[in-house]
Amino acid sequence: MENKKITKVIMDCDPGHDDAIALLLASRADNIQILGVTTVQGNSEIKYTARNARRVLDYAGVTDVEVYMGCPKPMMKEHYRLTGVAIHGEDGLGGPYIPDPITPVKEKHAVNFIIDTLRASDEKITLVPTGPLTNIATAFIMAPDIKEKVERIIIMGGVVYTDGNVNSSNEFNLFLDPEAAKIVFNSGCDLYVNTLDVTMKATFEKEDVERLRAQEDKVSVIVAELMDFFGNSHEELFNFFTIPLHDPVCVAMLIDDSLVEYEHVWADISTKDELTAGEIVADIWHLTDKAPNCHISRKIDREKFVNMICDHMKKPYKSKNA
Amino acid sequence: MENKKITKVIMDCDPGHDDAIALLLASRADNIQILGVTTVQGNSEIKYTARNARRVLDYAGVTDVEVYMGCPKPMMKEHYRLTGVAIHGEDGLGGPYIPDPITPVKEKHAVNFIIDTLRASDEKITLVPTGPLTNIATAFIMAPDIKEKVERIIIMGGVVYTDGNVNSSNEFNLFLDPEAAKIVFNSGCDLYVNTLDVTMKATFEKEDVERLRAQEDKVSVIVAELMDFFGNSHEELFNFFTIPLHDPVCVAMLIDDSLVEYEHVWADISTKDELTAGEIVADIWHLTDKAPNCHISRKIDREKFVNMICDHMKKPYKSKNA
Amino acid sequence: MENKKITKVIMDCDPGHDDAIALLLASRADNIQILGVTTVQGNSEIKYTARNARRVLDYAGVTDVEVYMGCPKPMMKEHYRLTGVAIHGEDGLGGPYIPDPITPVKEKHAVNFIIDTLRASDEKITLVPTGPLTNIATAFIMAPDIKEKVERIIIMGGVVYTDGNVNSSNEFNLFLDPEAAKIVFNSGCDLYVNTLDVTMKATFEKEDVERLRAQEDKVSVIVAELMDFFGNSHEELFNFFTIPLHDPVCVAMLIDDSLVEYEHVWADISTKDELTAGEIVADIWHLTDKAPNCHISRKIDREKFVNMICDHMKKPYKSKNA
Amino acid sequence: MENKKITKVIMDCDPGHDDAIALLLASRADNIQILGVTTVQGNSEIKYTARNARRVLDYAGVTDVEVYMGCPKPMMKEHYRLTGVAIHGEDGLGGPYIPDPITPVKEKHAVNFIIDTLRASDEKITLVPTGPLTNIATAFIMAPDIKEKVERIIIMGGVVYTDGNVNSSNEFNLFLDPEAAKIVFNSGCDLYVNTLDVTMKATFEKEDVERLRAQEDKVSVIVAELMDFFGNSHEELFNFFTIPLHDPVCVAMLIDDSLVEYEHVWADISTKDELTAGEIVADIWHLTDKAPNCHISRKIDREKFVNMICDHMKKPYKSKNA
Ligand SMILES: [Ca+2]
Ligand SMILES: [Ca+2]
Ligand SMILES: [Ca+2]
Ligand SMILES: [Ca+2]
Repeated sequence: MENKKITKVIMDCDPGHDDAIALLLASRADNIQILGVTTVQGNSEIKYTARNARRVLDYAGVTDVEVYMGCPKPMMKEHYRLTGVAIHGEDGLGGPYIPDPITPVKEKHAVNFIIDTLRASDEKITLVPTGPLTNIATAFIMAPDIKEKVERIIIMGGVVYTDGNVNSSNEFNLFLDPEAAKIVFNSGCDLYVNTLDVTMKATFEKEDVERLRAQEDKVSVIVAELMDFFGNSHEELFNFFTIPLHDPVCVAMLIDDSLVEYEHVWADISTKDELTAGEIVADIWHLTDKAPNCHISRKIDREKFVNMICDHMKKPYKSKNA
Repeated sequence: MENKKITKVIMDCDPGHDDAIALLLASRADNIQILGVTTVQGNSEIKYTARNARRVLDYAGVTDVEVYMGCPKPMMKEHYRLTGVAIHGEDGLGGPYIPDPITPVKEKHAVNFIIDTLRASDEKITLVPTGPLTNIATAFIMAPDIKEKVERIIIMGGVVYTDGNVNSSNEFNLFLDPEAAKIVFNSGCDLYVNTLDVTMKATFEKEDVERLRAQEDKVSVIVAELMDFFGNSHEELFNFFTIPLHDPVCVAMLIDDSLVEYEHVWADISTKDELTAGEIVADIWHLTDKAPNCHISRKIDREKFVNMICDHMKKPYKSKNA
Repeated sequence: MENKKITKVIMDCDPGHDDAIALLLASRADNIQILGVTTVQGNSEIKYTARNARRVLDYAGVTDVEVYMGCPKPMMKEHYRLTGVAIHGEDGLGGPYIPDPITPVKEKHAVNFIIDTLRASDEKITLVPTGPLTNIATAFIMAPDIKEKVERIIIMGGVVYTDGNVNSSNEFNLFLDPEAAKIVFNSGCDLYVNTLDVTMKATFEKEDVERLRAQEDKVSVIVAELMDFFGNSHEELFNFFTIPLHDPVCVAMLIDDSLVEYEHVWADISTKDELTAGEIVADIWHLTDKAPNCHISRKIDREKFVNMICDHMKKPYKSKNA
Repeated sequence: MENKKITKVIMDCDPGHDDAIALLLASRADNIQILGVTTVQGNSEIKYTARNARRVLDYAGVTDVEVYMGCPKPMMKEHYRLTGVAIHGEDGLGGPYIPDPITPVKEKHAVNFIIDTLRASDEKITLVPTGPLTNIATAFIMAPDIKEKVERIIIMGGVVYTDGNVNSSNEFNLFLDPEAAKIVFNSGCDLYVNTLDVTMKATFEKEDVERLRAQEDKVSVIVAELMDFFGNSHEELFNFFTIPLHDPVCVAMLIDDSLVEYEHVWADISTKDELTAGEIVADIWHLTDKAPNCHISRKIDREKFVNMICDHMKKPYKSKNA
């Protein structure tokens, strides 16, 4: 059911095609107020992901939402670029022409923006990380007091019931910064984790892309073109065409909380073994006595999801930061 | 297609309902010669698993195949009994009455039986471990030269594409002795790994059990009764009724090599992180340059599998150890 | 030989008795300009260590040097208070009466002070961490570019040739935040590591304390009283009386670079095993082909050290921040 | 004080110069009955260490003590030959001419010899491992019941209070097979661990070697020549001449239990971090509540040790296996 109450969010991302679509979806959602966008290395280098966020927002008229650049490297691991670049292109947003941004990226560090915004807020704020969790983990290290201001953390990352996109066990975002993931999973915050189990089913089929393109407005068309590139990249890397809209699931579930079903379980992140580092291990059978600490995605209503994306993309932007 | 050439096997098991059925299937297969049965702790304590193997073989007239007792504990980990006992009962073979064995378990240690048999053989031998890999790993530590005498190792263990039966990442057999699993996966032997991905689909439905029971012969009926208990245990522990014949898949694929499809990939076992220890991590997308070292199960023809089990159970035992 | 050139330093500490003496020594050194003091949890909680730094500086007239509060917890580990409190007292600076500070602790986060100061500086700056390395590691995560502005990092931490003060392998500072230590040891910065091997020999004997007390000036007397408490704590915890001035060694070696001998070796920090986490492992026999990345302390001239401390404590404070 | 009661031992070794001297010392000790000698890879390959044990025993007339060949590789780690070969020569016993053995090495595997001997014995038996712990750990995996027959395990291995001979943390024997070491340290057996802390002080000086050589008997002279080679190897590898008789300390402490002082502490072996694997971590300050599980060497009376070696080498062999 559509959620009416305004949710205040910080979008923490590494655009990235699906991050870009997530940003656009959030900007068009009636019940979401974007307090700021923070960026992190991931799908591409930090210099590209901040610029990409800004490019996309400016293109879609969202010039009143600021972008803050964050951590340029994982906490402890070497930067891993292999599949990021293969899927998203060298600059992280391959495909259609999107002009250089006019609005500048802010000077303030993303980590400080997260800390200051949470501390200054009277209300709790929802964090929506759709890239490696470096920024949020670092904010928690510097200022653990801010956890009390966190409403929920809506994560795109990991895989629990199926197989990964890096190897059989690992999903790209958590794999890139295992220590950050462990810090966030052990933060005590209320976690909703949209894993590949569900996001690989949050797909646009080719006909859905055409429906979007046929809407003809500027944003719908560019999103269709982003999807073209994204689908082709998957075909080249994994040998099958698919357009899994991983990151938009985090926003979509805020718009309609009946969209995704979750299971409440205990889970933690492996960091000690190089083989598995970044992997979620979940007590899915409730065989231990560990208290559930996160909601793992189980099912998504794909049709509703596709409709939501198509409907929102054609909406004009209405600022909520007045 | 049915395999005609005789395959000489050592069955290394922890009966266990599905181990028992695997033993019976191997004993009835025209193309399988069981050189010996070695037992290990796992589904139950070592004192029970050896006795259970002997009980089942004697009950089915397989008195010319010897049973050897092996390692009573995992190499480094504490014995884990939780789900073993929940699924198989305290003595590892709950359900129907099967009399005490008449044939004695041999004095020789299972590890020595494996070493001596391989060293003495002119032909290569197939190892069929359907429990924790402690015996085989220990044999490899003592006598690495025997690896050259190993035709293939047909393992039941692990999970790669789906979720585990201990937690989201771990399958019971490999979880019980991670270090042994790592030794076997790095042995250089030709590995066929029947994971939960396939064995959870190698199920008997209730109607299949009735078909088996209706065959009315002594072995078919007892196997049906073992399945009754096994299905009920699953319902109690995991909240759904299923009779997944994990271990018989290892034998069935030797009888008909078209039954199971495998993918040849590089894989290794996590041992360094307590969270993941015993888990298979596989390079399923071939993103690294590591050479494939094992065949991971992908698909099974369930109907063919059910038919094979039913048909073989009613066959009389014919010794191949003359 | 006494170093004439002014060394600009950021003191990063967790006072702590020996941290306090290190601060006082730095403030009295002709060739050291303290750009700021950052504090971290360690010997006591963050609220105490920042206040203690401020208390000590104010007491000694060093009111023009600012104190910044840093990270209140280790990056990933639970706070460990056992030996810190046993040695330093509940508030981290047990013993003599030192009044509440008048100068306030700055609002800016220590991590931001480190980043901003390095970025703003035309010259390279020396970091002098004498507590857990959380602040410096976090600054490196947020802003890896600042490493280029680091002249050297003069660490008090770890043990290489002898035994630890937490267990046989671990020294308190690195043990408290192993991940931070690993980040700093792998930073590529020029590291001088004053380990327990040397700092346990940088002792004041009881007669040295009396000499200090006999100097009668305000600072000498309070330092003597801090030493009294510190020695007694050691006797209670470790069963022998000793006053090892760990942290002041980091400052003393900047005053006189002939004081401590170092060996240039490759070393890294264990983080993967709970047993050893935080330990330095050094290739002391040069048996690997790994390039040296740090200077490990080997010898100290204790007499010269004691004289230096005594002589500096009676000096008046002369500001270098004009 | 000299121990009168006969101690029955199994010597488990990797000769190795100091292993060879340990064997000779045991064979000449009035209170030690060698039940058998088992060999393991370590200072050299398994084919050499078994042969070397046999060579040394035959040379010294100890033809009634049998030698059993054990595990040719560490349990999980790759064989590490670097410093073994550098110190002991390619065949593990470089230096003087010692003829090929006449007595054959037994066919039985060392691990089976250990298991069978312990099981068959009415009395408890002392294990004296002076190489990697692979054989003993494997015996414990196969037959944990034998631990009850173990009187004590007198280990040469590890380092606790000083620095290692592989890197700052690791000693060669435990480093070669960390998993085996962990199994033995967690076995519950009564452990006496002669670490480098003491064995590096159990040295023969050049004058002591001359004293031995001057005894002129066959065994004394060959031992002096072994020491010549051993000392020169150390000089080449580590840049200082020393003849540390590591392994003989394990025998010497059985001959005279006042020779070595031990401290009773809790200790465990690191296996999870590649950096530290094989290292002993000991709770030397009794800061945890873990019960002591091993006696770590602290002090040795070098003069008494040298006298004991010299006196025993000139003794004729008297069989105790009649
Ligand atoms: Ca993303
Ligand atoms: Ca089984
Ligand atoms: Ca300190
Ligand atoms: Ca040795």
